[in-house]
Amino acid sequence: MNGALARWLPLFADLRRAGRDTLAADGLAGTVTAILLIPQALAYALLAGLPPQVGLYASVLPVLVYALLGSSRTLAVGPVAVAAVMVTTALTPYADGDMEKYVAGALILAALSGAILLAMAALRLGWLTHFISHPVLSGFTTAAAIFIIGTQLSALTGIPVPRDANLPGIVRALLAHAEAFNTATAAFGLAALVLLFAARKPLTRVLVARGIKPAQAAIAGRTAPLVLVAVTTLISALTDAEKRWQVAVVGPIPQGLPGLSLAFLQEPGWAALLPAAVMIALIGYIESISVAKALALRRGEKIDADQELLALGGTNLMAACAGAMPVCGGFARSMVNFDAGARTQLAAVVTALWVALAAFAFTGLLAALPKSVLAAIIVVAVWQLVDFPSLFHTWHYDRGDGAAQAATMLGVLGFGIEVGLMLGVGLSLLLFLYRTSRPHIAVIGRLGESEHYRNVLRHVVETWPDLLLVRLDETLYFANAPRVETELQNLIAGRKDLCDVVLVMSGVAYIDSSGLDVLESLERGLAERGIRLHLAEVKGPVMDRLKDTALCRRLSDDRIHLSTHAAVQALRRVDRADARPGR
Amino acid sequence: MNGALARWLPLFADLRRAGRDTLAADGLAGTVTAILLIPQALAYALLAGLPPQVGLYASVLPVLVYALLGSSRTLAVGPVAVAAVMVTTALTPYADGDMEKYVAGALILAALSGAILLAMAALRLGWLTHFISHPVLSGFTTAAAIFIIGTQLSALTGIPVPRDANLPGIVRALLAHAEAFNTATAAFGLAALVLLFAARKPLTRVLVARGIKPAQAAIAGRTAPLVLVAVTTLISALTDAEKRWQVAVVGPIPQGLPGLSLAFLQEPGWAALLPAAVMIALIGYIESISVAKALALRRGEKIDADQELLALGGTNLMAACAGAMPVCGGFARSMVNFDAGARTQLAAVVTALWVALAAFAFTGLLAALPKSVLAAIIVVAVWQLVDFPSLFHTWHYDRGDGAAQAATMLGVLGFGIEVGLMLGVGLSLLLFLYRTSRPHIAVIGRLGESEHYRNVLRHVVETWPDLLLVRLDETLYFANAPRVETELQNLIAGRKDLCDVVLVMSGVAYIDSSGLDVLESLERGLAERGIRLHLAEVKGPVMDRLKDTALCRRLSDDRIHLSTHAAVQALRRVDRADARPGR
Repeated sequence: MNGALARWLPLFADLRRAGRDTLAADGLAGTVTAILLIPQALAYALLAGLPPQVGLYASVLPVLVYALLGSSRTLAVGPVAVAAVMVTTALTPYADGDMEKYVAGALILAALSGAILLAMAALRLGWLTHFISHPVLSGFTTAAAIFIIGTQLSALTGIPVPRDANLPGIVRALLAHAEAFNTATAAFGLAALVLLFAARKPLTRVLVARGIKPAQAAIAGRTAPLVLVAVTTLISALTDAEKRWQVAVVGPIPQGLPGLSLAFLQEPGWAALLPAAVMIALIGYIESISVAKALALRRGEKIDADQELLALGGTNLMAACAGAMPVCGGFARSMVNFDAGARTQLAAVVTALWVALAAFAFTGLLAALPKSVLAAIIVVAVWQLVDFPSLFHTWHYDRGDGAAQAATMLGVLGFGIEVGLMLGVGLSLLLFLYRTSRPHIAVIGRLGESEHYRNVLRHVVETWPDLLLVRLDETLYFANAPRVETELQNLIAGRKDLCDVVLVMSGVAYIDSSGLDVLESLERGLAERGIRLHLAEVKGPVMDRLKDTALCRRLSDDRIHLSTHAAVQALRRVDRADARPGR
Repeated sequence: MNGALARWLPLFADLRRAGRDTLAADGLAGTVTAILLIPQALAYALLAGLPPQVGLYASVLPVLVYALLGSSRTLAVGPVAVAAVMVTTALTPYADGDMEKYVAGALILAALSGAILLAMAALRLGWLTHFISHPVLSGFTTAAAIFIIGTQLSALTGIPVPRDANLPGIVRALLAHAEAFNTATAAFGLAALVLLFAARKPLTRVLVARGIKPAQAAIAGRTAPLVLVAVTTLISALTDAEKRWQVAVVGPIPQGLPGLSLAFLQEPGWAALLPAAVMIALIGYIESISVAKALALRRGEKIDADQELLALGGTNLMAACAGAMPVCGGFARSMVNFDAGARTQLAAVVTALWVALAAFAFTGLLAALPKSVLAAIIVVAVWQLVDFPSLFHTWHYDRGDGAAQAATMLGVLGFGIEVGLMLGVGLSLLLFLYRTSRPHIAVIGRLGESEHYRNVLRHVVETWPDLLLVRLDETLYFANAPRVETELQNLIAGRKDLCDVVLVMSGVAYIDSSGLDVLESLERGLAERGIRLHLAEVKGPVMDRLKDTALCRRLSDDRIHLSTHAAVQALRRVDRADARPGR
């Protein structure tokens, strides 16, 4: 196998190196992941407003494509909650009640997301996703999770709520139609909620107390949703809950997997779904790559961000062809896969085979499964995404980031997923520009007998009346150049004995044309008053650019110093015994 | 006089300190500036589409207000060409041919600009103007000057051109109505152009060759426009050029100055003019403050950016009350004032008195002045603003800035003043975000026996297999945090013997929440693999924020080092003889 193939299809390279240990570990991890994935796949399809089998379709062929192409060894892809609710938000107005159009719309969203990710891979635009900051993403996820829980209140109580309602609308609809409350539906849902929450920490604690290893106890807890689905379906079928108590059930699910099809290409309305597809692609990619990076770091593996774009793009194109919804890497699912010992994407292949088996063998048995049980699975899964302490932490560390996070949350809850996200991104960009436009500037002096120079306001340092050392703590660009100019002029204006000003550029990563103009006018203005301007600690890339400028010709080598200490030695003419050449 | 009054009215403080020398110097400089200003005032009013006397009104009371409030000692305010053409652009669609509405609109623009500048002063929003970079401003000025020259072709040839035409439209109109060419009009215009250009360098050269001092020769050249106005008016009146050859002339100008009036407050259409007023205020303020700063630097004086907002705001409010057009500091005019020896704003008071005298005594004589002469004065004045070499310089230093400058120019010429400016600002912001999202990261090592550490790729330095020193060359924020994380992981992934990683933070001015998350996850991930993360050279403001974080508690004082050298000494356990405490 040559290097190019190994780069494009990382799985093959991994498998060539894999021993029997790895294969066994992947087999176990893939099985554990499948046990978690099957009920989640059904539930998230329901959350997306789609027939439950669509979630299974999304968990077979797309998962295999990611396994082939993905650069992460442990990321587990499939339907995820946040993308699912974004599908609902986009398709409810699009399909306007027409279920066939709705399902076709889901395939279009998957195809568009895939195409967008592939285009980003081709144009190397993965960095665009970096503009969604952690606080914005965290606020978005928490608010989306709260909104998802709100949407499930309808399925949990049997009270009908319009699909396009926002959170206040959901609450109003629940109160207005409270008479439609269905006790049996709620009983199934409530029992499921209690059991699922109990299967988390409480069950683990009990098992560990009985001598079972913590890792195994955690895996046992992960089987709870599947067991719950089996048991409640059985009860519902035996009691004929649908007819006797009007409990909403999943209904007949077609057996097997559909053939690959490009029929969705004929559908109209691609342009209308494009904005939603962009959001789904970006959010899905960010969630995937964050999980992939976190897991890779724990084992010292590498993640290739461009390869991930390619892999997730291919995965979503496959989802569209396979009649499925948009997919991406799931946080909880990947953690389970990692903790269960997955070493390569062979685990994902095992997972996909189990899901396919379920689709062929067991779907016929699930007709009586109450929808409120799936709603409970959704609520418990997204419950972990609600993270209010994060808001307080962010606010405590940085008021600006905290404000962006809060604005994103309020935006999502008050105006919807897309508006909230864009509000947060816009705010955090404005905040960054505001900050960089007000750079920190420090007058520095020599720390003891060291060659280290620090802020005169924070440290006891040596300074000189005829020599001013000023450190610029920000890239010098148009939005801060005028302020830097004013601050430097003010620092210099009060100094009568000044002969030399050294600008210490250790914090300057870049000087744009406006910054260069400021330095040139400063140098000329100071020269008219007999003061010489010097530069020190100019970084390599900055110096490369400055080399050809009028400023550098005027300064020449005498006034460009490698380090602050070299500048001070040259200008103070003290310590000449141990003086080193300036450049 | 107390300190507060001295701050708000800098002129009084200056005058208390002024001796007889200063008063004499200011008297001379103010007179020279008035000789330049009077013909320019008439011409720029015409450029703004207003009756010529409006330019004189703008040069008396508003100039006195700036003299009282301005923090610059030598800035000369009045009508300027770029603001004048922006007034035309805004008012032509607004007034739709109604001259009374047009003049009222000019007052509204002045009042709105003044109010906007005062609001910016009150809210300390002067920094907003920093977002117009030097290349964008330069491209804007060059393109606006070309456009202004284009608009004057109509007055220079007598061929009518619609006022709202863009540059291609002007050329088309000139060609389509070439039969309207008026030879006498063009003769006046051409003669004026030749004389004005000759009065610049050629005249100065001749005078200097005859033994006159260069400074005095330059002042003699500045009298050319006023002499030209007098001579051409006389010729036009004696030949009765208006009736004999249909030369367009200025016509009767009312004598004196109008009383202060708030009648413009009753006019409708303030909202429609607001966007144009914002642009005029921003561009006017930027032009003023740049000139003020450049001149202040040459004498070691200070400019207070907020006081300038206040002064220019008050100046424009006064312009509205005095029946005048928007005003700001002019580049050429202020240079003349400075070079003629102005020391305080008393010079501006003298200028205003001369303009008032002209308005009362001489306006009655100007009825026969050909408009083509004023057009020639405009063309020669703005000719100096056209700066194509700047585009090449910018492009040579920085391709991105050059592209922004070119786009601004093409935008202004192709789509108009406002669109061009916004295009340039938008592009330069995107460029900055793109750059900061791709930070420079350098592995560094010890330079010789110094305490200075530099990039291993650029210098011959000492490094160690178990110790990695990495310098981050950019503020760590959401848009670059993922890339920094990936690059650091890649640097670390290949190193088997690694025990310690030191992040050198000398280039990091700020760490936002996303950056902190990356550092925390990096520290935890490395810890799982037995590698210890350290920080060195963390700047004071960054450390203040980090102090309370989980990261700092985990690192504690052992792994936070004052300097790179201190970190290396602590970790290498060599040179312990001269080791210093880490913090």
